[in-house]
This record gives sequence, structure tokens and C-alpha cells, in this order.
Amino acid sequence: MENGRLCALSRPEARDFCRQGGHMISSLSNPKVKQIVQWQTSAARRREEGGFLVEGFKMFEEAPLEAVREIYATAQALEKIGQSPVLREKLERICHEEVTGEVLRKMSDTQTPQGILCVVERPAYELGHLLEAPDPLFVVLEDLQDPGNLGTIIRTAEGAGVTGVLMSERTVDIYNPKTIRATMGSIYRVPFVHVEDLPGAVKRMQEKGITVYAAHLAGETYYDSFDFRKGTAFLIGNEGRGLSRELTDCADSLLKIPMEGKVESLNAAVSAALLIYEAHRQR
Amino acid sequence: MENGRLCALSRPEARDFCRQGGHMISSLSNPKVKQIVQWQTSAARRREEGGFLVEGFKMFEEAPLEAVREIYATAQALEKIGQSPVLREKLERICHEEVTGEVLRKMSDTQTPQGILCVVERPAYELGHLLEAPDPLFVVLEDLQDPGNLGTIIRTAEGAGVTGVLMSERTVDIYNPKTIRATMGSIYRVPFVHVEDLPGAVKRMQEKGITVYAAHLAGETYYDSFDFRKGTAFLIGNEGRGLSRELTDCADSLLKIPMEGKVESLNAAVSAALLIYEAHRQR
Repeated sequence: MENGRLCALSRPEARDFCRQGGHMISSLSNPKVKQIVQWQTSAARRREEGGFLVEGFKMFEEAPLEAVREIYATAQALEKIGQSPVLREKLERICHEEVTGEVLRKMSDTQTPQGILCVVERPAYELGHLLEAPDPLFVVLEDLQDPGNLGTIIRTAEGAGVTGVLMSERTVDIYNPKTIRATMGSIYRVPFVHVEDLPGAVKRMQEKGITVYAAHLAGETYYDSFDFRKGTAFLIGNEGRGLSRELTDCADSLLKIPMEGKVESLNAAVSAALLIYEAHRQR
Repeated sequence: MENGRLCALSRPEARDFCRQGGHMISSLSNPKVKQIVQWQTSAARRREEGGFLVEGFKMFEEAPLEAVREIYATAQALEKIGQSPVLREKLERICHEEVTGEVLRKMSDTQTPQGILCVVERPAYELGHLLEAPDPLFVVLEDLQDPGNLGTIIRTAEGAGVTGVLMSERTVDIYNPKTIRATMGSIYRVPFVHVEDLPGAVKRMQEKGITVYAAHLAGETYYDSFDFRKGTAFLIGNEGRGLSRELTDCADSLLKIPMEGKVESLNAAVSAALLIYEAHRQR
């Protein structure tokens, strides 16, 4: 089972292996294909292997070279890559396999795949390390459930220069294909940490002098009245339930976003965006 | 075919009809059920009938009484409504039919339906009328494709006190079930207009003294440096392609949102939110 061997090979060996050429995967029942399909749908299976899947040229281009484990691409996609010196050089340094269009569509989570799919190593960040940044800016997500919202928050967080994103264990899987797509590549660059005990993490932040704000309906002061130039963290709650009472009670201040009409709350990604961009504006 | 008659009945007749009771729909092949299923998936079918579907208690509660054509609800949902005086009174004034849980699941677009689904009349707004508002605030969407983004923009627009949302003909259907859900009820309250000729509409706005801003990568001035207190419109482009050259050229000014890291653009709903909330903040 040649294709199954790739993962276990060290980089130079894998490269030699790939260079032998002619290893096109054309069978939908190829074990590698089956494995990728499982990864697309099961967070547990992705976690077991410590990797995640990304699709498309942009996600391939922006992936850190040393983190890419495997590449699957159609002949058409390989030809397109061949036309870009930067992409071609990257491709040559990573083990890749050609697959038929039918196989790639089977592996893909999208309706109109671009023809390239990569298996990428998960990054590992440490909260303690992130807390050492000067005047850090954090987003803390409690049980966020929508993969698109999470991905959009990661993307916006990079745009606003956020130090890191903390997530409760019950937050939707950050490696969900929909989340990955919504990050538009920011998944590679925004540090994030899963935290078992969010109130404990909030306490650690406060001990470092970081002021923790809860976006909450009960807030009495509008968000743009605070000074976010020093260490700041924003707590964002679940889409349906908002922030839990327990976590809200950990905050130093409640803040509110003004809302006209009959609007009771804003979308979680929109709330996060308004807050972190207000911090960015002040800084 | 008694159930099929409901639509054609005038309100008082329909009420009498409903009061006769005992008209539970239990067959998945009931023509009404088939029609609703078609509406859930086909924008063209929805358009033909001039209605749209909403689901859940909140969407039922917030629907304008005179706009609700039909209600389908399970026994459980009817019982829950019966416990709320406000909801019960509303239900009694509108024709409704009981359906089995199986039928409702078939009709529903959601995985865990709340047990109530309504057919609602489409509202009709006129651009000319909206343009008469003092110092209006508009969002103009060019070919937006993601239903969640569109719904989130409608929701955020209500929160920020936007006068109206203009959409190109090729924008995703505002009555898409995903869009409706994402509006969280704002679909009933935010005026919106489909425009065949967006550059023409921009010109009409400009003739009314409204300043039109394009959110564009080529912008040289940050969005918070402008004065949005007078009549203002923001042009937001398609998720993948951004604003077309043609529409960008119609704008009075280009503005940009600052972005750190390697972020090239923000999510369309996030961009719209930052701009309209900056206008709201200034006003």
C-alpha cells in the first residue's frame, strides 16, 4: 500500500518517494481517500491524528512549509501550480500525490473544489507564553457553536492585531472545514488556545494586569467609552445563550454595544469585531 | 382537498375554517407539505408565490400580524403557545393548522425544528420613499453570495439604525431560509430594495446629497476619519471579488479598514458592521 506509507516517511525519503512519480490515486476506495473523507466529517478522527485539512491554492500558498504533511492535487491543479514559480518551489519541497478529479471531489468538503487539498500539522500555542506579550489583546470565546462565526472571528482577530483567541472546550472545533475556510488563512497566524477552565484563565489574565470585559445585555456603559489601550480581553458568549452567569461574574466590567430597533443582540462575530476594532482604533 | 383551500380563503373565512378543527395534516404527501418543501429549496418557487417561510417561536412572535398567511404547528408547539397570552391571542387571529412532528420535520429547513412554521407575505419598500428620510444611512450590497452574511448584515443594520439596505439583482435571495434565520427577526423591520441598476441607484442617492463610500483595498483613508453624520451610503462588494470597478467608480470616496498581519480583506458582514457602527457612533 504505497500511498499509505507517505505519512510515516521522513521528509527526504518522502521526497524521493514522490519523485518516482506515477503514483496517481484513481480509486475512491483507496485507504488514504477514505481517511481524508473521515477527517472532513469527524472532529474526533481529526484530533486523533493531530492534523487538519485545508483546501485551495490560497490555503496551500499560505501554509507554513514545515507544517504541511501531505498534498493531494489533480493534474490540472499541478499544472496551475507549475505556472507560479513560488508555488512550484513550495510544491517541490513537500511530498505530494496526484489524484483524479473524481477522487479529489470525493475528498473535498466543498462543492466546487479547486483541485488541491493539504494535510497540515496542528500548531501548539501556550497561554503562559501569550500572556507575556506587552499590552496584549485577547478574545475569549465561551461555547461558540457556529463554525463560520469562529472562522470569521479568527480572521477578524488577525486584522485587528489580536494577541490570541481563547476557547472553551465546548466551542465548535476550530479545525472544522467550514471554520478553516472562514479564516481565509488566518488559522495559520492567529495564536489560539483551548482552555478547560475559562474562569481560571480569566483569573490568570487579571493577575497579569489584563482588564477583562464581558459583552453583556446588562452592561450600562457603551463599549467605546472604555480605554482598551492597555492589556484587554473581551468575553464573547454562545450564540443562543450568551455568556454564562459564572463567566460574566469573572469580568472586571460589563460593556454594551448600542442597539436600535428591536435587536436584542448582535451576531457573535459582529460583536467581537466591533470590540476588537474599537481596541485597535484606540491603539 | 381542504388543506389546499386555506390560501385562497379571505381572513374571516379562513378563521372559521380553522375553528372547525380536526384538520391535522399527517401525510408527507399532502400537497401543502410538498409546496412548503419546494419553497424551502427553490428561490424561484418562493418568488412566484410572493411569500416566504419563517420558523420558530421568536419569528412567529415578531411577524407582523397582517403579514402572516398561514401557520403550521405541532400539538406540542400549540400547547406552548397556549401558555403565553400574547402568543395565544396572535395565534387565534391567524389561520393555523396542526401537523404531526414528522410532517413538520419534513417541512422544516432546520435539523431541530421548534415545531412552528409560518408563511409570511413579502414586504414592499420603495427606494424613492427611503431616500426622503433625513440624513439617511444606507448599505448597498453588490452580488453578495453568502446567505448567512446577508442575514447578519440585515440584523446588524437594524442594530445600527440603518435606513435601508439596497441589493443588486444577483445578490443571494433574501428569503433564503439561512438568511431569514440569520436576521433573527430583523427581516421584518429593516427596509430593503432590490435594484436592477446599482450605479443608477447610487446616482439617485448622490442627487439627494447622500455621500457614497466604497470600502476598497485601494482606499487611502481609514474609515474612522470620515464624517458620517449626514446622509451616508456604504458600498459592500461580493465576498470573493470585492466591489466591481464600475460600482467603485461611482463612489464619492474610497475608504479602507485597517488590517494587520496578512489579512487582505474582512468578511463582508464584518466590514459592513464596522462601517455602519462607526456611523452610528458618530451620530
